[in-house]
Amino acid sequence: MKREELFNLMVEKKSFLCVGLDSDISKLPKHLMDCEDPVFEFNKQIIDATIDFAVAYKPNLAFYESRGAKGWQSLEKIIEYLNKTGGKIFTIADAKRGDIGNTSKLYAKSFFGNKDTSLNYDAVTVAPYMGEDSVTPFLEYKNKWVILLALTSNKGAEDFQMLESGGKKIFAHVLERSKQWGNADNMMYVVGATQADMLADIRKIVPDHFLLVPGIGAQGGSLEEAAKYGLNDQFGLIVNASRSILFASGEKDFALKAKDEAWKIQKEMKKLMKL
Amino acid sequence: MKREELFNLMVEKKSFLCVGLDSDISKLPKHLMDCEDPVFEFNKQIIDATIDFAVAYKPNLAFYESRGAKGWQSLEKIIEYLNKTGGKIFTIADAKRGDIGNTSKLYAKSFFGNKDTSLNYDAVTVAPYMGEDSVTPFLEYKNKWVILLALTSNKGAEDFQMLESGGKKIFAHVLERSKQWGNADNMMYVVGATQADMLADIRKIVPDHFLLVPGIGAQGGSLEEAAKYGLNDQFGLIVNASRSILFASGEKDFALKAKDEAWKIQKEMKKLMKL
Repeated sequence: MKREELFNLMVEKKSFLCVGLDSDISKLPKHLMDCEDPVFEFNKQIIDATIDFAVAYKPNLAFYESRGAKGWQSLEKIIEYLNKTGGKIFTIADAKRGDIGNTSKLYAKSFFGNKDTSLNYDAVTVAPYMGEDSVTPFLEYKNKWVILLALTSNKGAEDFQMLESGGKKIFAHVLERSKQWGNADNMMYVVGATQADMLADIRKIVPDHFLLVPGIGAQGGSLEEAAKYGLNDQFGLIVNASRSILFASGEKDFALKAKDEAWKIQKEMKKLMKL
Repeated sequence: MKREELFNLMVEKKSFLCVGLDSDISKLPKHLMDCEDPVFEFNKQIIDATIDFAVAYKPNLAFYESRGAKGWQSLEKIIEYLNKTGGKIFTIADAKRGDIGNTSKLYAKSFFGNKDTSLNYDAVTVAPYMGEDSVTPFLEYKNKWVILLALTSNKGAEDFQMLESGGKKIFAHVLERSKQWGNADNMMYVVGATQADMLADIRKIVPDHFLLVPGIGAQGGSLEEAAKYGLNDQFGLIVNASRSILFASGEKDFALKAKDEAWKIQKEMKKLMKL
């Protein structure tokens, strides 16, 4: 998906919400467990219930690969289902991959599509530790996106991302170097909402790039704070909520409750977008 | 596998060789393409041919997941096959995963075994960027290992790993902090052989830990250099070779040539181990 299409999608839906498909099988409503593929059925119903309010969906790979080949099969069905919506959805593989060049090339192939798999996302999250040649293979695909980890929402973000080198934090080095590898049309950054006050500093380094902001809801981040420091004239934000939507109810009404929760967030976003 | 068992395995085989199962489907010998599962067949024959000379096998996940669910099925068969050898092999998932705590917990489950998947490795490679809570969930499994990226063998290692903070390089910070999260019985570190001269510095920080050294062979690293700076009194090294063994020949004699190559490396190792 092109940047302009993503922008138009946001205007159309008055939303910059991403629904994180962290479909923990131990938390799925019990009545679904009799389905042939409970994980697919759960995600399908979540997608149907929230698609009017969300511009993006982000399956977290760990929740699928922890079930091995079976999990990957569920995931392929979910992406096929999402892609059937006809390009109206931005899809993110939350995979946090990254390896030496020839290996990253294969990870890019894994997530951006090839004849062997029906996984065909718009974007993939990538870890920066291994540097330029671990990232650039993902940038060779037209209209596809790298979403590079910059400042994450977890406690461990303090350990290395916040170390200072030459007067700048490591995450700032990641932003500054990596923005030379791609541009605002093929790169975004992960910036945790629990670090919202740092968004202002980050916006100085990458004023035009989209930021993917996890950590709203269950992780305790504030949507208003993220919007205050993160929105730019192209919106420039994709804010993710996972557990607060997916598991708003653990009963038969789970999809209805997920819809209510997504709708509530979308209404807040509409205000913040001044649409 | 316990540290002591790994040590005994090295003594028994007079080897610290790891064979990297980077089974690029585009490079497989043509005559295998008629098999029901060419990737499994290739790996099976490579394992049979090299198992007398190798103490470890390391499938690189990208080469499997680039084929989606099918690739994961091949991988499950390979691990089942390796585990049938009766604990005489140390298995490493070269996955370079790492995410916030609750997600890393699922990645650990993916690679260390659960009822849904037959993937049951001894060790998994983990990326350090997200810090402590992205690593510790892997350390909760008994007799399992985290192999944390410290200094990698690619050009991009220069970008962030070599930045200085407080008089120390970032990779040194990774070593120093992370060694407090686990110990030499459940953590190892990835140190590229192309950076062999830095192994001496690394040994000062982690004198007892095993180091997984990729980059021998196709990537240009020297086994002798790696051994000179890296070996300790418990050997403390696992040296990986992938392409130079796997694709020693692209014809019907590929397994035979792989055996010759692995044997050649094992003989060098035997000398270096003074056994």
